[in-house]
Amino acid sequence: MSSSSPPHIPSPNAPEPFAARHIGPGEHEQAKMLAECGYGSLDALVAAAVPTAIRTSGALALPEPASETEAIAELRELASRNTVRTQMIGLGYYDTVTPAVIKRNVLENPAWYTAYTPYQPEISQGRLEALLNFQTMVADLTGLATAGASMLDEGTAVAEAVLLMRRVSKAASRTVVLDAECLPQTIAVVRTRAEAVGIDVEVRDLEAEGLPGEFFGVVVQYPGTSGVLREPAFYTGIGEKAKAAGALYCVAADLLALTLLSSPGEFGADVAAGNTQRFGVPLGYGGPHAGYLAVRSGLERSLPGRLVGVSVDAGGKQAYRLALQTREQHIRREKATSNICTAQVLLAVIASMYAVYHGPDGLARIARRVHAHAAGLAAALREGGVEVEGTHFFDTVVAKVPGGAAGVVAAAREDGVNLGLAGADRVRIACDETTTPAVLDKVLRAFGVTASAAERLTALPEGLARRDDYLTHPVFHAHRSETAMLRYLRGLSDLDYALDRGMIPLGSCTMKLNATTEMEALTWPEFAGIHPFAPKEDAAGYHALIGQLSDWLTEVTGYDEVSLQPNAGSQGELAGLLAIRAYHRANGQPERDVCLIPSSAHGTNAASAVLAGMRVVVVACTADGDVDLADLRSKVETHAGTLAAIMVTYPSTHGVYETGIAELAEIVHGGGGQVYVDGANLNALLGFAKPGEFGGDVSHLNLHKTFCIPHGGGGPGVGPVAVRAHLAPYLPNHPLAPEAGPETGVGPISAAPYGSASILPISWAYVRMMGAEGLSRATQVAVLAANYVAARLAPHFPVLYTGQHGLVAHECILDLRGLTKQTGVTVEDVAKRLIDYGFHAPTMSFPVAGTLMVEPTESEDLAEIDRFCAAMIAIRREIDDVATGRWPVERSPLRGAPHTAEQLAGEWDLPYDRALAVYPGATEPKGKYWSPVRRIEGAYGDRNLVCSCPPVASYEG
Amino acid sequence: MSSSSPPHIPSPNAPEPFAARHIGPGEHEQAKMLAECGYGSLDALVAAAVPTAIRTSGALALPEPASETEAIAELRELASRNTVRTQMIGLGYYDTVTPAVIKRNVLENPAWYTAYTPYQPEISQGRLEALLNFQTMVADLTGLATAGASMLDEGTAVAEAVLLMRRVSKAASRTVVLDAECLPQTIAVVRTRAEAVGIDVEVRDLEAEGLPGEFFGVVVQYPGTSGVLREPAFYTGIGEKAKAAGALYCVAADLLALTLLSSPGEFGADVAAGNTQRFGVPLGYGGPHAGYLAVRSGLERSLPGRLVGVSVDAGGKQAYRLALQTREQHIRREKATSNICTAQVLLAVIASMYAVYHGPDGLARIARRVHAHAAGLAAALREGGVEVEGTHFFDTVVAKVPGGAAGVVAAAREDGVNLGLAGADRVRIACDETTTPAVLDKVLRAFGVTASAAERLTALPEGLARRDDYLTHPVFHAHRSETAMLRYLRGLSDLDYALDRGMIPLGSCTMKLNATTEMEALTWPEFAGIHPFAPKEDAAGYHALIGQLSDWLTEVTGYDEVSLQPNAGSQGELAGLLAIRAYHRANGQPERDVCLIPSSAHGTNAASAVLAGMRVVVVACTADGDVDLADLRSKVETHAGTLAAIMVTYPSTHGVYETGIAELAEIVHGGGGQVYVDGANLNALLGFAKPGEFGGDVSHLNLHKTFCIPHGGGGPGVGPVAVRAHLAPYLPNHPLAPEAGPETGVGPISAAPYGSASILPISWAYVRMMGAEGLSRATQVAVLAANYVAARLAPHFPVLYTGQHGLVAHECILDLRGLTKQTGVTVEDVAKRLIDYGFHAPTMSFPVAGTLMVEPTESEDLAEIDRFCAAMIAIRREIDDVATGRWPVERSPLRGAPHTAEQLAGEWDLPYDRALAVYPGATEPKGKYWSPVRRIEGAYGDRNLVCSCPPVASYEG
Repeated sequence: MSSSSPPHIPSPNAPEPFAARHIGPGEHEQAKMLAECGYGSLDALVAAAVPTAIRTSGALALPEPASETEAIAELRELASRNTVRTQMIGLGYYDTVTPAVIKRNVLENPAWYTAYTPYQPEISQGRLEALLNFQTMVADLTGLATAGASMLDEGTAVAEAVLLMRRVSKAASRTVVLDAECLPQTIAVVRTRAEAVGIDVEVRDLEAEGLPGEFFGVVVQYPGTSGVLREPAFYTGIGEKAKAAGALYCVAADLLALTLLSSPGEFGADVAAGNTQRFGVPLGYGGPHAGYLAVRSGLERSLPGRLVGVSVDAGGKQAYRLALQTREQHIRREKATSNICTAQVLLAVIASMYAVYHGPDGLARIARRVHAHAAGLAAALREGGVEVEGTHFFDTVVAKVPGGAAGVVAAAREDGVNLGLAGADRVRIACDETTTPAVLDKVLRAFGVTASAAERLTALPEGLARRDDYLTHPVFHAHRSETAMLRYLRGLSDLDYALDRGMIPLGSCTMKLNATTEMEALTWPEFAGIHPFAPKEDAAGYHALIGQLSDWLTEVTGYDEVSLQPNAGSQGELAGLLAIRAYHRANGQPERDVCLIPSSAHGTNAASAVLAGMRVVVVACTADGDVDLADLRSKVETHAGTLAAIMVTYPSTHGVYETGIAELAEIVHGGGGQVYVDGANLNALLGFAKPGEFGGDVSHLNLHKTFCIPHGGGGPGVGPVAVRAHLAPYLPNHPLAPEAGPETGVGPISAAPYGSASILPISWAYVRMMGAEGLSRATQVAVLAANYVAARLAPHFPVLYTGQHGLVAHECILDLRGLTKQTGVTVEDVAKRLIDYGFHAPTMSFPVAGTLMVEPTESEDLAEIDRFCAAMIAIRREIDDVATGRWPVERSPLRGAPHTAEQLAGEWDLPYDRALAVYPGATEPKGKYWSPVRRIEGAYGDRNLVCSCPPVASYEG
Repeated sequence: MSSSSPPHIPSPNAPEPFAARHIGPGEHEQAKMLAECGYGSLDALVAAAVPTAIRTSGALALPEPASETEAIAELRELASRNTVRTQMIGLGYYDTVTPAVIKRNVLENPAWYTAYTPYQPEISQGRLEALLNFQTMVADLTGLATAGASMLDEGTAVAEAVLLMRRVSKAASRTVVLDAECLPQTIAVVRTRAEAVGIDVEVRDLEAEGLPGEFFGVVVQYPGTSGVLREPAFYTGIGEKAKAAGALYCVAADLLALTLLSSPGEFGADVAAGNTQRFGVPLGYGGPHAGYLAVRSGLERSLPGRLVGVSVDAGGKQAYRLALQTREQHIRREKATSNICTAQVLLAVIASMYAVYHGPDGLARIARRVHAHAAGLAAALREGGVEVEGTHFFDTVVAKVPGGAAGVVAAAREDGVNLGLAGADRVRIACDETTTPAVLDKVLRAFGVTASAAERLTALPEGLARRDDYLTHPVFHAHRSETAMLRYLRGLSDLDYALDRGMIPLGSCTMKLNATTEMEALTWPEFAGIHPFAPKEDAAGYHALIGQLSDWLTEVTGYDEVSLQPNAGSQGELAGLLAIRAYHRANGQPERDVCLIPSSAHGTNAASAVLAGMRVVVVACTADGDVDLADLRSKVETHAGTLAAIMVTYPSTHGVYETGIAELAEIVHGGGGQVYVDGANLNALLGFAKPGEFGGDVSHLNLHKTFCIPHGGGGPGVGPVAVRAHLAPYLPNHPLAPEAGPETGVGPISAAPYGSASILPISWAYVRMMGAEGLSRATQVAVLAANYVAARLAPHFPVLYTGQHGLVAHECILDLRGLTKQTGVTVEDVAKRLIDYGFHAPTMSFPVAGTLMVEPTESEDLAEIDRFCAAMIAIRREIDDVATGRWPVERSPLRGAPHTAEQLAGEWDLPYDRALAVYPGATEPKGKYWSPVRRIEGAYGDRNLVCSCPPVASYEG
């Protein structure tokens, strides 16, 4: 890592560097592309594009790049430093068996993990069905009407539930009551989030103390952290009292327990929240996992996050798509009530497939086995003279060993089992799907008990036994052999278009290669099997990796400290803003609460500011798309004394290196504000400019964009927050892991100390294999590719904004507004028509309505970029055909797109022929991608909201 | 493994056994199917179907079944007993880097590994293209006209080359000359094979001794086993002398070396043979790898094994299919000249993709690096005072250390490096793609040399430098980024129909589930990284696994000993027959050389008998398909004194449990013959009958049928041979691994001591997880499924043969001959029409021309079986439509099948409509499979033989 190491002069026989595989265009291709752009070299192009003022000096100080083989060897060495013990710590995380067929064919399959968020629903029907299964599973098990398509984790899910309850409740109170049996990390995350928006959190022993007089919401953990199950009257009583107070009732419930226990819906809960990790998702030192949120009928339109619904396509065929998108933060901006953007799609898919594979009977059998182990353990402990708390529990028991807890935990640890240390006198033991009699024997030995645990069939309160059916839909019954499951997974993935089929040129989303070597370590048991609250020594490999990755991220961004805890970009934003807020408060300036946001910003920025307790003030853009510095000066003046920060994306969301960025920072700093540089576009900076050097005080990064974590069909993401030293004391921390953040931190922003720890090896491997030169080369080629596309397409579609020398950064905006006005052909028509040409559409109408934003990234080779350009040029000719009246727009191939194979087989009354509809390109790549449905009507589905699996009969016709 | 262990009574909460995932139909489904067949229970059905006389008593003595988690844990424990060192032993096996993108997306991807042999070429275009790439790669690098689609390993490839040379040569001699520099295992395999067919093998130091006066063929190793490269004149001189003698010239060449060295074709070689392992295929303790065989122009019709060629489809579009199938053993039977059947498709795909990914420049760079390391090492050794043999070499050097070789090897081993011990005075060191300067330092240290090895660029003879271009086809240049490679692999696999899409009801081929858990260990480094000639201690895990699997296989077959060495069913057959041959000879009865083979037998049986030096005498079948015992008696009498054996398949290839099997064995034994029971249909016996108990003396098993090794698109297979005690002394052994077989054995049948060792964990895991009860249940359900299909389809297609109570065994033959006669609709028409319905065809015209043989296996669930029956019934209605004159057969949807999407988009002048063509089924499963081409004309391609990648222009139109 020393910058004094000699420059690397590769031997002519040296192994091919990984960068040559990551970067699509080879040298000859790059030369062709440079020629099209009018530059002689990559250096010349980037010198022209990137303002000198912000250029960093010198190369990045990173280790020499490792080959793929070397990186794997280093990862294996890091993995070997982790110690996988039997994990019985509980606290919301339980070991589980990922069915091998699901692991290999989802988690290790690029068709699933390289997919994008299903914003183009026609080409996302596979994962949308999987998410609908997830929603159905959660709704059924919780006994509530509607569940969303996943939350980031249980802590944030409950925090979102609290905000939802505050929005919906008619009570005037600002107090939310949390059951003292709530998970400690949930309480801490809720506190972090509540503080910023002025909600008071009251933690109470609800059995002993009851509810307070006034409150807007109450959260009960079910079963409790100590494993306890109360009598049915307790749960229904809370519901009744909440209702009487005009408050809402949220149950944080364990889905596996719900296969045997009465559902929250039966108790009168309005909301349920929790985690689906134990449905087949590895522990992974805390994440990623799919949290869940479900609501009773009537609250569905208040749900934050993504919601999949059923609608119909242009031919009347049933089809899925995201429902109620008008609720989303990127549309509501400063009126947003949540900043949730990325979900945990890949993990939600795994959890839902676990339910599909086991079915209701299989899940209940697992639950009964887990419970029988816990009950047997409790009985054996009691027989052995150890006191066990409580009478009723599901999977977790707490043993009382006055003064002896640490000794018991240590003894079990010696024997390969991690138990939960709950103070000096109490030991928590959580059983799970992997628990065996042999493990229980070890636990008993640690207590000095020699008896064995016989299976006891029940320690569940009689009145809590589940009586209603769940998971009755055929999908939870039809795929129970491995062969059937394999085909279901293949069939669904075949419906979708992911990076393994072709280019996904999404502006702002950086859909680049997710290299296999980067993905390998993720499913190794040494990374997958660590409990987030296992002793730090067990995670020595993780800590070494986290330390290195943190160092590299600070080096490439120019900041001083980084926290890897935020498990999505939105959470990184929030953490960054909370740090700014805390900084001003520490400086005695709590009145600083204005957050300036340029009109071109991503909507999440505004939503995050609101959730950080700030007031959003919009700064105008000039006609050429840059932030209007005059307006900025005026806004800074207007809000003198209350200015907290500006949030600015660089390069801008317009895909341009604005030359005024340094001046912008000066102006804001001059007004006492902090500069938040949104790192979404870091792909255009790495190796050439560092936000921490050109004026930023804080940035979040999107490891799932710039640093190769795959999009997973809409998550997981990782959004580290990086800060300059003065903000470092206010980074996130964690009550259960002092080493995870500064003592003076703002509290946890995610449930787990290191967020989505298990996917950090992906970004680690990327940086490790690219090295300084590779990262810089990637930036250059990303900029080259965008400028090449702009140059090739400008004659056909105006390129909206450019920076100095007429160059764009790493993406370009194609302006269709003129053509739309002239012909009626919309950006949506072009986006859908691209499907017929074998492409995923670019970003539609962001950041400017009526435009398409294209980001080819460095990973696409010239052949694919040219295929895309050819498609766009051909589409332009089709638009001209509309203009000249060859077809009316309503009956043009553009409006008719996407076309399906089913259509071909039927009657054909369109003014263009079938071949033009489905084979418009001159050369079709191998294996044409067929959209399984025609264009989907979103509004129909929003009017007729159905968010769980529709009955089978409804599929017909 | 003790049979006295108490019966397993699962707790109601016990984990679901793996068998419930492996077996498709659940209990309710089984009940439905039993009802259709008219039986009340599985036990009743099997009691009726399986003759009492052959039933085994008692349950199989196997360990209690492990869960998937437990099996993986045990495999990890076994893996941990292997020790992976840096492998520099050479001898034809070299470490290599499997590109991660290829490993994950081919070797770990069911779309590739669950595919069947491409006998239905329309739905196999992806792997046929990959194999054509393989053939092109081999032909280009060897400088010869035509290469086949892979051989089993280098030893058998050279053995096949020897047989080919004997067939083609006009010389009268029975002598083949092998270069003393040939690999020792190659020499041994050739000796095993030559002895049986009366070929004399003469091993000569060709430089010192020259060629003998008379010979029909000569094999030169290039480079030699000791690494040596001779002067160009040596290689061309051999060719000239061979030509003069009317003999042929085979060069056993290393493909990586050929990227830098003159090709065998340039020397005038007629044949080249070798291994492609070092092109990305893991060592895997010896296999599986893809051997290769290539021939000069004019010899292509003499090539054994599979050959892919280019042809056209019904629309004139270019398409691939197996060429020259009339050469194949299953057609030529007792006139066959080779028994090669299974190839190594999956490994050939990997090797070809390695070449596609690296391209000619990348391969040459790897070769230069390997060579530079070897040259640097030699120089450093010499500088350090160690004598190094020879001047010219590619990757391997031999150091002379009189009396000190063992010490050097031991010292290197201490340091983690395995060197080659070549006698007391010589150490062989082979460099490979993974060699690094650090490794060379270790090697030098072992010699006591302290200098470091500098890269030396050449120790190649100047005159041998390669001058011609190779791999010039665009496919070796277009997929060089990981993204491009990923898409190429996905695109190819999307063209193909494999088990991950739907049922492949191939009679005799047992296409059942290849469970993910079974597949997992195969790519673990602890199994992948062991050299076949590494010290036995390094492979302790392998040996434990091989021991257990061998015990289990003898237990389930009723034999006494098993050899896992044969790496294909055909090789198992040959090994079994060679054991019989050796047994008779040991008994002083060398005249026993008649092998009786029923007319219904698989053609490979006869071919194997020929290669074992036997004379084939065919035994008739009765009208009901059974072996005609009267004819058998008469043949036994006729050949009294010369009877060697009978080869009989049980259940018969007609899919019937013949009741006369025990009597048959008695008759043959009475005549002094041995009974060879072909184990191809063991899937119908496991748990109920044991060939070793009902009369068999020897059987080969197909681990890739009954024991879940996937077909890999046509290989790898594993064909262990199991024998009763009196034949055990004549099992295969290996000159380099005394523990691999009996001292009195027949010699090696495969190049590696344990054949395809690295895929044995698959079968191990299957038996380990199924246990006795699971295996028996699988047999029952396989028999149930076949009888269910027979019952459902009998009203529509006559079921040709049945056994007692009118039951079939595990497969059934549908007789179309009457319908064909009546309507002209052929079995091929039905097979191709099934593609439109979303199925792979059953076996066509085997064992009876004009029929289809259906084997549903136990892994298909009822929904899929019913979908198949519905398709067959619908097809029967289509045949009726031909009969009634609705369509002429030539223009019927049957003859038009398969129909492509491209056809739909064009003009349509057929008498049936598009929807009937492509959506004939009532309910279409998710993601219809589209055949990429129409029906392929095989004869066109055979007339115009093209067996390497055609120029790109030819793809157009």
